[in-house]
Amino acid sequence: MILLTQQFEFSAAHRLHNPDLSDDQNRKLFGKCNNPHGHGHNYLVDITIGIDDSAYGDSINLVSELEATVRQHVIDRVDHRNLNVEIDEFASLNPTVENIAIVVWNWISNGRCPGILKNVRVYETPKTWADFSGL
Amino acid sequence: MILLTQQFEFSAAHRLHNPDLSDDQNRKLFGKCNNPHGHGHNYLVDITIGIDDSAYGDSINLVSELEATVRQHVIDRVDHRNLNVEIDEFASLNPTVENIAIVVWNWISNGRCPGILKNVRVYETPKTWADFSGL
Amino acid sequence: MILLTQQFEFSAAHRLHNPDLSDDQNRKLFGKCNNPHGHGHNYLVDITIGIDDSAYGDSINLVSELEATVRQHVIDRVDHRNLNVEIDEFASLNPTVENIAIVVWNWISNGRCPGILKNVRVYETPKTWADFSGL
Amino acid sequence: MILLTQQFEFSAAHRLHNPDLSDDQNRKLFGKCNNPHGHGHNYLVDITIGIDDSAYGDSINLVSELEATVRQHVIDRVDHRNLNVEIDEFASLNPTVENIAIVVWNWISNGRCPGILKNVRVYETPKTWADFSGL
Amino acid sequence: MILLTQQFEFSAAHRLHNPDLSDDQNRKLFGKCNNPHGHGHNYLVDITIGIDDSAYGDSINLVSELEATVRQHVIDRVDHRNLNVEIDEFASLNPTVENIAIVVWNWISNGRCPGILKNVRVYETPKTWADFSGL
Amino acid sequence: MILLTQQFEFSAAHRLHNPDLSDDQNRKLFGKCNNPHGHGHNYLVDITIGIDDSAYGDSINLVSELEATVRQHVIDRVDHRNLNVEIDEFASLNPTVENIAIVVWNWISNGRCPGILKNVRVYETPKTWADFSGL
Repeated sequence: MILLTQQFEFSAAHRLHNPDLSDDQNRKLFGKCNNPHGHGHNYLVDITIGIDDSAYGDSINLVSELEATVRQHVIDRVDHRNLNVEIDEFASLNPTVENIAIVVWNWISNGRCPGILKNVRVYETPKTWADFSGL
Repeated sequence: MILLTQQFEFSAAHRLHNPDLSDDQNRKLFGKCNNPHGHGHNYLVDITIGIDDSAYGDSINLVSELEATVRQHVIDRVDHRNLNVEIDEFASLNPTVENIAIVVWNWISNGRCPGILKNVRVYETPKTWADFSGL
Repeated sequence: MILLTQQFEFSAAHRLHNPDLSDDQNRKLFGKCNNPHGHGHNYLVDITIGIDDSAYGDSINLVSELEATVRQHVIDRVDHRNLNVEIDEFASLNPTVENIAIVVWNWISNGRCPGILKNVRVYETPKTWADFSGL
Repeated sequence: MILLTQQFEFSAAHRLHNPDLSDDQNRKLFGKCNNPHGHGHNYLVDITIGIDDSAYGDSINLVSELEATVRQHVIDRVDHRNLNVEIDEFASLNPTVENIAIVVWNWISNGRCPGILKNVRVYETPKTWADFSGL
Repeated sequence: MILLTQQFEFSAAHRLHNPDLSDDQNRKLFGKCNNPHGHGHNYLVDITIGIDDSAYGDSINLVSELEATVRQHVIDRVDHRNLNVEIDEFASLNPTVENIAIVVWNWISNGRCPGILKNVRVYETPKTWADFSGL
Repeated sequence: MILLTQQFEFSAAHRLHNPDLSDDQNRKLFGKCNNPHGHGHNYLVDITIGIDDSAYGDSINLVSELEATVRQHVIDRVDHRNLNVEIDEFASLNPTVENIAIVVWNWISNGRCPGILKNVRVYETPKTWADFSGL
C-alpha cells in the first residue's frame, strides 16, 4: 500500500469556547482565545489516503479526484466562515484544532475519497497541529 | 546604512467591508471576504529599520529592543482580536492587508523603534502581502 | 504609495540552451541544465504592484483583480508547458530564470494589472530567483 | 529504535501517460499533465531509516553515510532528467508521484542505506506527496 | 485517539565528538562537525501527544499546557547553550540529532505532558531530523 | 538591469560580546546571547547581483558562477566554525547579524562576483535578518 497526501488551505474565524462551562471558566481556561469577538487563522489540511496496487496509476487520476472531493466536502464549507457561528458541527462543539480534525474526518470518511482515508491533519498555525486517523 | 528586519505574527478575525458602500455593493465587490460573520488569518508582520554606523552593535541590542517595541505597540493590540470590531482604526477603514500595513506603520513610526523605520510588510496569507514605507 | 504582492506558481519543463552557440559550447556552459530531453521546476512568481491613495481599498478588490489578470496572461500560458518548445518567446531566447522574469513583465506591463506594475520576481527553485522592475 | 530522515531535492521533467491507454483516454484522464512536450517539478525526497541502539552515534556518521548513498543511487540518476524518456523504470510505468516513491524505494532498499530503510516520501509540489514504506 | 503536536525552537552550539574514540578517529569520522571550537544550529522540536476522548477540549487547554511543560523542561534548558559543555546528559554522550531526540524524550516522558507522549522529532537543519517514540 | 539572487546556508557558533565593554555590561546588554560557551544558528545568506543586458544569458552561466564564487569566499570560510574564535574579522567585532552581513559584503564586493554586487542578506533565524547594500 502507498499513501498519497494532498494539502489544502482555508481561512476562518473561530473562538475557543466550551458551552458547558460558565463564561468565567471559559475565560480562565482559554484566555485570549476565548475573546467573544473571535479571532482567526489560515488553516492547512493534509488529507492522506491509502491506495493498494490494483487501484492506482492507470484508470484514475488520484490527485485530481482527491482534490475535487475535499474541495467540495470540506474547503467550500469552511473557507471564509466563522466556525462557531456558521458550521452546525461547532454549535455545541468547541472548534479546537483537535475537534476540527475529527469533523473533517467525518465529512469525508464515508467512502467519498478515492482509496481508503488514512489520516487528517489540521494545522491551526505552522506550529500547532492535530492528526486524526479514525477510531 | 544597514537594514535589520524582525518578523512577528498575530492571529485575528476580519471582514472586508467598506462602510461607504451599500451591503449589496460590498457583497459584489468582496465576495466571500465580506461574510458578515467574519473569517480570519495568521498574519505575519516584517518590521525593517535602518541603522547607521554610529548606532549599532555596541551600546544597544537592536533585535531585542525592536522586538519589545513592536510587541507592545502592535502585536499585543491586534493578536486574537477582531480587527473590524475591536480596533478603533478599522471602525471606518476597511481592514485590507494594504490598510493594516499603513496602520502598523503609524503606530510605530514616531520614533518608537530603535533606528529609522524603513518598511512595514504584512502578510495576510503566505501568498498575499503589502509593503508600506511611508510617504 | 503602497505595494501589493501576490504569489503564483506554475510547473514547466525547460532546457538551458543558447541557439547562437554550438552544441558543444552549450554543453560546456550549461552542463546538466542543457540536457536535450529537458528537466523542470515548480516556478513561483511574485507580482508586485504600486497603488496610490486614490486607487485602493474602497472601490476595487485589488487582490482578486490582480489574481485574475496574472492567471489569464501568465499562468494559463506557461503552466504544465515545455517553455522552449511551446512558448514563442523562448524559441530564440534562453529560458533562464532572468529571461522568464523579463518575459512575464512584458506580458503584463501594458496597463493590464490594477495599479502600476513595480516588480516581477521568478523563483526557479527556493534558492534561485530573479527580479525585474522594468528599464 | 530511532528514526533518522534526510531530505534531498532534484529537478526533472515528466509527463503523466499510461502506455496501456489510448491517447484520447490519457488526455481525458490526466488533462494538462499529459501534455506530450512534458512539464516539470522540483521534487523533494525524504529518506527515513531506522537505527537500533547498537548501531548509532559512535562508530558511523549516519547522516553523511545516508547522504552519500542516496546521492549516488537516486539523485545523480534523476536530477535534471526527463523521467519518461531517460529513466528505464518509467519506460512502461507512469511517473506519478506514487510510482516515483516506489522506484526510489527499490533503488535503495537492498541494504544500501545504513540502518533499515523505513520510508520514502516524494513531494511533487509542496502540496502533493506520496509515502511508500515497502510491502 | 487524536494526536496533538506543538513545535518549539532553540539555538545551541554543539560539536560531534565521541569521548570513547581518539581525536584522530573523531576527526576522520565527523569531519568539520568535530571542529573543537564548535558550530551551531537553530533546532526545531516537535512534541506529539496522544489524547483520548475523555481528556480533551473541555476542561484543559491542551496547547497551552503542552507549551508550558516543554518550555520549562526542554527549551529553557538548552536554548542559547553549548550542548557539549553545559548540558550534563551530553558530557559523555555525543550530541547527534538522534541523541538529542532521546534526551528530550527522557526529560518529558514521565507524565509531565498532558495526555500521553507519543513522539519527539528534532530538526538539526530543515533537511535533517530524528524521531524517537520510546522503546 | 535585472537582479539575480542565490541563497546559501551555513551553520556556525557565535556569542554576542562587545570587547570594549565590561563582562557585566555585556551580560546586561546581550543576556543569554552573551553566554561565554556560545550558541549557534543555521544562517542563510542571499547574495543579489545586478546584470545588464550585455552581460547575461549567452556567454556565462550566471547561477553557477555566482555559486562557485560565494562558496569559495564565504561559505567554506564560516561553515561549521565558531565565528568569534576562528574568523579574524570577528576578533574585535561583535558577530551580530548586521556585522556578519557587512563582513560577507566585504569578502565578495571587489569584483569577485559576476555582475555587480547589489545586496547581501543574512538570516540568523527565519525571523531575524539584516540587509547590507554598500555605502
